[in-house]
Amino acid sequence: MRIEIITIGDEILIGQIVDTNAAWMARELTQHGFEIAAITTVGDRQKEILKALDNGFSRADILLLTGGVGPTNDDITKHTLSHYFHTALEFNDEVLQNIESLFLKRNIQLNQLTRNQAYVPACSTVIQNMNGTAPILWFRKEEKVLVSMPGVPYEMKSAMTSDIIPRLLEQFQVHDYVCRFYLVAGITESGLATLLAEYEHQLPSGFSLAYLPSAGYIRLRLSVWGDEHSEEMKQQSLKLKQMLGNLYVAKSEKAPEALLGEKLSKMRYTLSTAESCTGGYIAHKIAVVPGASDYFVGSIVSYHNRIKIEQLNVDDQTIGSCGVVSSEVVKQMALHVAGKMKTDCSIAVSGIMGPDGGTKDKPVGTVWISTFCAGELVVQKYLVGRSRTENIERTANLAMLQMLKMLVSK
Amino acid sequence: MRIEIITIGDEILIGQIVDTNAAWMARELTQHGFEIAAITTVGDRQKEILKALDNGFSRADILLLTGGVGPTNDDITKHTLSHYFHTALEFNDEVLQNIESLFLKRNIQLNQLTRNQAYVPACSTVIQNMNGTAPILWFRKEEKVLVSMPGVPYEMKSAMTSDIIPRLLEQFQVHDYVCRFYLVAGITESGLATLLAEYEHQLPSGFSLAYLPSAGYIRLRLSVWGDEHSEEMKQQSLKLKQMLGNLYVAKSEKAPEALLGEKLSKMRYTLSTAESCTGGYIAHKIAVVPGASDYFVGSIVSYHNRIKIEQLNVDDQTIGSCGVVSSEVVKQMALHVAGKMKTDCSIAVSGIMGPDGGTKDKPVGTVWISTFCAGELVVQKYLVGRSRTENIERTANLAMLQMLKMLVSK
Repeated sequence: MRIEIITIGDEILIGQIVDTNAAWMARELTQHGFEIAAITTVGDRQKEILKALDNGFSRADILLLTGGVGPTNDDITKHTLSHYFHTALEFNDEVLQNIESLFLKRNIQLNQLTRNQAYVPACSTVIQNMNGTAPILWFRKEEKVLVSMPGVPYEMKSAMTSDIIPRLLEQFQVHDYVCRFYLVAGITESGLATLLAEYEHQLPSGFSLAYLPSAGYIRLRLSVWGDEHSEEMKQQSLKLKQMLGNLYVAKSEKAPEALLGEKLSKMRYTLSTAESCTGGYIAHKIAVVPGASDYFVGSIVSYHNRIKIEQLNVDDQTIGSCGVVSSEVVKQMALHVAGKMKTDCSIAVSGIMGPDGGTKDKPVGTVWISTFCAGELVVQKYLVGRSRTENIERTANLAMLQMLKMLVSK
Repeated sequence: MRIEIITIGDEILIGQIVDTNAAWMARELTQHGFEIAAITTVGDRQKEILKALDNGFSRADILLLTGGVGPTNDDITKHTLSHYFHTALEFNDEVLQNIESLFLKRNIQLNQLTRNQAYVPACSTVIQNMNGTAPILWFRKEEKVLVSMPGVPYEMKSAMTSDIIPRLLEQFQVHDYVCRFYLVAGITESGLATLLAEYEHQLPSGFSLAYLPSAGYIRLRLSVWGDEHSEEMKQQSLKLKQMLGNLYVAKSEKAPEALLGEKLSKMRYTLSTAESCTGGYIAHKIAVVPGASDYFVGSIVSYHNRIKIEQLNVDDQTIGSCGVVSSEVVKQMALHVAGKMKTDCSIAVSGIMGPDGGTKDKPVGTVWISTFCAGELVVQKYLVGRSRTENIERTANLAMLQMLKMLVSK
């Protein structure tokens, strides 16, 4: 069953916000066996929305709309759907009751704009929104389905999980999507593709291998539709792992921080970080994983050099002779943060993220990463030279992967 | 001139990655006076790409394609464009030279897959990609234009900035998009819309006001096409600011961390953070702003309670009697981090981000934030109760806004 996701909102078309909803929905739906035909974003204008609905129904069986359902005048999705389905808006008491109980809980007064949220297209089936004022609207068009939901991420996610996906699974037959993910590090995309050229060539019909380069690593996806291919998938998966040799990091679609967390939990090791150029980003990534408090203890962000000396006891003469972006400095940072925070493991980074601060010897993108684990210290230099944000992302991933590899080898 | 952005890649349709390219492009193009008609994502399949091209040309004058141009077999954009424009692939020596010099710089050997990148559709104009192996391809279709470029963010951004946007501006007439952004905090979206109902009603034809709720604040966008409205915009903007009263934080589309950074720079104040539940995210957001080293000194992430006591000198009896998520604890954290790091200002947070850890008295989402500036201490409780990731985002923004308001009032 093919689904098209249609995101409605001028804020996306002018680049004010990034559409993270579509990615979340696509992921959830794929995992439930639905195929995403396309993702489209259009503005809050009736003509454009109508055209998107026509395009959508020409290539998909199910249209999932998000956005344009707020109480304000710039939101016109509901009116446009009334027009599209030739139906009038009618007042729905249950929606009002739902809004009233929501506002009571939050201790906010109900105003007329919010009351208007209870007007819904007559031909739609209403699903109550347990987290917001805009109801979820479900339409049938012959054998096809259209669902309109809010664009507020947690309202959309809650409705998708508890109502929309279960109802879609009741009404539509799905094929299983069988796939395996591999995290690969230490090679370029074309280098990896050259290495795997013969392997790709021998893959049975229907199987496909995709290369998904990420900041600091490559994700491989081996996939096929239909679970009758499960046995073949097992064999191909084994073969692939052998081909990858020591480029292979993990058979998983999880992010480095999640893999690192699992490994630390399993080994009952604790972790701290000492960060300069990443400014706390590694700590944040590690802490965002639910249950991180089992192994993550804390971090010292020494953005200013003075903090490296005062809080991390880095020798100021070492800074003077080697520079802050050096093997010697990150080694001291890693050792001292583990000592101060009494952790088994630690990660320390120092680098030049740009746009300024590069020199001929140490251009923008030069990063030193040191990882420490139970008495052992590893230190490595990387060149990540791209834009500032990407450099920070890349450095954080490389640091977590260096730590992960160290733990795997133990 | 209307543009459609077409992103090609299975990795987006299965939700493996978030399409941040489209948002960046939309923003840049809007600022240069182009209007984005739609954003579409389709998979790496010829039929779907061809349909997207037809849909695209039916509503836009310019199609900008990203993705599907890597050296591997799953990338088929170039072949699909050859088919669409009824043209053959031919070898382009200049592309090969560009790739060779790139690989020489990176000290990587050239393989056949990469060499194949130099085959380009005969009818296209080639723009060299200074950062990668896939050339940028420019096609004309009567009065319309199609440009295919890589999906790797820094390659796309570099090509857009230095080549594609300048060439589009040469060939197409654009209207100016006049807009003003406002950061508003301390009110719900519907509450704000009720407050501004009359103001919205009196706006001259062509003007529109959009509500863009973010984690912890609302962004308002007042906009109109055509710079003949500049004078009227000034007046409407003034009126809006008056209506907002003390809900108004800033007239800007900048993120809270950028506004905070500007204010700190201007006042010549330094800043440190002491973070528990946000795990270094506030420090990271502040540090990601170019030039942050002028005011940001460092952070102590005390994820484990032991670190609050040992590194931030929080009284363990206070933790025992008030709990770690309390006014007393964040006050001590803010004071002591400023003392330890010798900064003028500091931000401290402690809260329960979920999914676990909530109690009846302190449910998931309970957050205490303390901000310190030049002898003065502010402490406030917030309820952010949503999902873990959103709670962290919201807490970070609320903390930076609390600090910013404190500075503005000085």
